[in-house]
Amino acid sequence: METDAAPPIQQLRNGDEQETLVNPQRSEASLTRRGVIAGLALMSSLAASLRTSAVLAQGSDAQGAPPAPPLASWNESAARDAIIRFVERVTSNSSPNFLPPPHRVAVFDNDGTLWCEHPMYVQLAFALDRVRELSPLHPEWKDSPLFKAVLDGDVKAVAAFGQRGLVEIVLTTHAGMTTEEFEQIVTKWLATARHPRFKRPYTELVYQPMLELMAYLRLKDFQVHIVSGGGIEFMRPWSEPVYGVPPERVVGSSIKTKFQIRDGAPELFRLAEMNFVDDGPGKPVGINQHLGRRPILAAGNSDGDLEMLQWTTLGGAPGLGLIVHHTDAEREYAYDRNTDFGRLDTALVAAEMNKWPVIDMKRDWATIFPAAN
Amino acid sequence: METDAAPPIQQLRNGDEQETLVNPQRSEASLTRRGVIAGLALMSSLAASLRTSAVLAQGSDAQGAPPAPPLASWNESAARDAIIRFVERVTSNSSPNFLPPPHRVAVFDNDGTLWCEHPMYVQLAFALDRVRELSPLHPEWKDSPLFKAVLDGDVKAVAAFGQRGLVEIVLTTHAGMTTEEFEQIVTKWLATARHPRFKRPYTELVYQPMLELMAYLRLKDFQVHIVSGGGIEFMRPWSEPVYGVPPERVVGSSIKTKFQIRDGAPELFRLAEMNFVDDGPGKPVGINQHLGRRPILAAGNSDGDLEMLQWTTLGGAPGLGLIVHHTDAEREYAYDRNTDFGRLDTALVAAEMNKWPVIDMKRDWATIFPAAN
Repeated sequence: METDAAPPIQQLRNGDEQETLVNPQRSEASLTRRGVIAGLALMSSLAASLRTSAVLAQGSDAQGAPPAPPLASWNESAARDAIIRFVERVTSNSSPNFLPPPHRVAVFDNDGTLWCEHPMYVQLAFALDRVRELSPLHPEWKDSPLFKAVLDGDVKAVAAFGQRGLVEIVLTTHAGMTTEEFEQIVTKWLATARHPRFKRPYTELVYQPMLELMAYLRLKDFQVHIVSGGGIEFMRPWSEPVYGVPPERVVGSSIKTKFQIRDGAPELFRLAEMNFVDDGPGKPVGINQHLGRRPILAAGNSDGDLEMLQWTTLGGAPGLGLIVHHTDAEREYAYDRNTDFGRLDTALVAAEMNKWPVIDMKRDWATIFPAAN
Repeated sequence: METDAAPPIQQLRNGDEQETLVNPQRSEASLTRRGVIAGLALMSSLAASLRTSAVLAQGSDAQGAPPAPPLASWNESAARDAIIRFVERVTSNSSPNFLPPPHRVAVFDNDGTLWCEHPMYVQLAFALDRVRELSPLHPEWKDSPLFKAVLDGDVKAVAAFGQRGLVEIVLTTHAGMTTEEFEQIVTKWLATARHPRFKRPYTELVYQPMLELMAYLRLKDFQVHIVSGGGIEFMRPWSEPVYGVPPERVVGSSIKTKFQIRDGAPELFRLAEMNFVDDGPGKPVGINQHLGRRPILAAGNSDGDLEMLQWTTLGGAPGLGLIVHHTDAEREYAYDRNTDFGRLDTALVAAEMNKWPVIDMKRDWATIFPAAN
């Protein structure tokens, strides 16, 4: 019996209760979405680690033990110090840079910043599985170099098609159903899919130090949002139980939807047409569209986050930009300029120029993933 | 000296403090936006009425007087009863239809539902003023039938151009500047513009009973959002001080913006290109895009709200749809099928079919607008 099997619903419900502690400021973040979420492979181990980090972030455990540091899985480091210094600077009443809570807006990229994006984006793994599942209905795919590469499992060849290839695969596999049906498809897939190397559900391969950072920020009355190049509807079914980020605080790429009434019931039908690409210069646009406020803290890990970091930090007011640098081939992956997924090049140069702390995963993080069961 | 003059900044700051009481559940709603809002013509009388309604909604005043009903400016009516019955149904622990707070999502149309939309949409009045202001730079407008009608002050002729005309006027007057510049333009205009009949700032011509309804819903742990066909960036500068709805809870129509760096500072530049029309079938699309949840309560007043009301009420789960019917020519305006602004026809038929309570303004509302100074 595998230790990473999805927990029975009973356990999951317990997990839900534990989540309440993750996000003590916001009661709406403590509950999962209607029904659908029941199938999600949220491990009770993950919920337990979330609880632990939240408790640490509050400075003491339930037994009244001495206060623990707010970012327990972070080693002493320049990045950790910069985070704490910045948060104190904007939240201390006596600080000249004090900002009231509504202006404490933090945005996090998802792929490679909050969860593992190698050996490929999780959403791509999902899309490739969808292609395989749907292929019996599409004999013509055998004549398409792109879809043939997918069916042959040749990820390198798929990646060679670039952004255009990804978009075509996404439009083909993510459209043609209602928003509710898509949510169920995502939820069901996440419950059984496993990471090829770590053999754990993808929703467990989130970075423990970043969970602690989000908990710390919420404790300091920050609003925590996700701003990802990934699909908004791909993230929303699990962002709340896994990160404590409710669906209305998730910004992402999207395809168009169409309102229609079928058999007397209204539905939103997903069309094979791009609506918005929330990447690169699209990130500040998406942030403005959804939040209507400029963030004061942004965390990313790739060139797709550059403009979001600029928007957050170069406006004249105090702002902190953070870059997660994947330097740990042993515990996770090591990559920056030479990768198909999460390339970090220009943004690394900009980090030096703009004094954005670069988080060295190998050196700065004592723990990478929450402990398995 | 007019009683409706904009208050000096000093008074405005007092108003800000009073707002805190409007929205006791959400500290982020109690503060105005950075700097810009200081110019907004939020009358202290309005803030005071907001405080009154919020206190009433809490059931007793500060002196411990006996509890007042939650919707004090509403007459005894079927609509009022239906609202209270529905809220009790989804918030009582013992109810089989109990919903936890994250699912208590309410959406409100703005024009004609929360504030006065006659003799024309406020945003159109703004756009027409902008055309007049910009006309010295555009001698060619004299040869355009649309812009000539605007400059002649012929609103009927402007309205005859329909949606297409409105879009052209908006694209011409709302683009070509940064998002921050546009926010300042809106704020400055609202501070001095007056309604032609009531001679009060537009932000005072909001419906007192609807302010109380929003306060009542927040007290019952609802998330209150605005979902309007109006421009998202036109509403955000004042939605928080006037309605207690922070910018991230405003959904509206939008033009495209472009991220760019000018003189080392990043900015979002507004382009003369439509991005999204949040009207009719666009409203459920906009709601899904921004909130990722289906509302359980929706209020509107025109055919442009039909699909939002269907989306909210016909999904199988309990949902309440409300229609504001403008029936009071004396205190406000009386119109439904025969108007250029806020036409109510199909949605009125649908209301009867779907048992959506129709609010008869003349009969059901004891007060229309907050008292003037």
